[in-house]
Amino acid sequence: MTAGCPLCDGDGGALVWRGARLRVIRADEAGFPAFYRVVWNAHAPELSDLSAAERIECLDAVVAVEEALRAHLRPAKINLAALGNVVPHLHWHVIARFGWDSHFPSPVWAAAQRPRDAALEEAVRARLPELEQVLAARLAAAEAAGGDNRVS
Amino acid sequence: MTAGCPLCDGDGGALVWRGARLRVIRADEAGFPAFYRVVWNAHAPELSDLSAAERIECLDAVVAVEEALRAHLRPAKINLAALGNVVPHLHWHVIARFGWDSHFPSPVWAAAQRPRDAALEEAVRARLPELEQVLAARLAAAEAAGGDNRVS
Repeated sequence: MTAGCPLCDGDGGALVWRGARLRVIRADEAGFPAFYRVVWNAHAPELSDLSAAERIECLDAVVAVEEALRAHLRPAKINLAALGNVVPHLHWHVIARFGWDSHFPSPVWAAAQRPRDAALEEAVRARLPELEQVLAARLAAAEAAGGDNRVS
Repeated sequence: MTAGCPLCDGDGGALVWRGARLRVIRADEAGFPAFYRVVWNAHAPELSDLSAAERIECLDAVVAVEEALRAHLRPAKINLAALGNVVPHLHWHVIARFGWDSHFPSPVWAAAQRPRDAALEEAVRARLPELEQVLAARLAAAEAAGGDNRVS
């Protein structure tokens, strides 16, 4: 726990699943309904602050989110990023991008390319409850399976 | 090889090291002298298109670059990203960020926060030859060690 860190003080978004070492939250970022974050529970700024086993566990969760987004939403592209310049507590942005979204093909942090499409955003949002249910079950199963042989 | 893909047709930047499955290049991005990319040699759009063993090899290289940047440059933060909206061939941006850089703490894709500082950029650039030499040796050693037991 690091005092004043928003990812130590709270979940950081709508909780999809929480495990012993990491959690997945849905972010609330305007224009990007399928914007998730994999947050490492302990306060560590950089990926290389984790052990090799911890990095694998963290990236396996990133891949699980990515695969859920691909399977349920068929996006044009997945965007992954660990930046942390403002909140230096390891968190991975996992974002489903669509050709119609306000910024595509630019990064979500760049200037918008076109107006938002509320109907298409809502169509994505309607699929998230099932996506998150399947994803949470997968993450729980992976943690249960990995707990036996993972070096912590 | 995918026709018309710039990361199939060429290295994509100044080659630091090339291995059997991935390479590291130094990008030429104005304002960010320590901007590297880990490029998967085969054409695959998403991280989840790789096998588990391939993902570990790819992320181990990302971490090797990150650790080299941290050790040689003491940046304020490392930024990692795999976007690929324009070039959907898996490549990881690994960027050393500094409090004085033109965009900090914003992402490099966002609007600039201040003018560039040519002298500080040059001081970073002066350290890159040694950094890259050490990094290339580490990547070569890792590939040699991993070749024996890695499932391809």
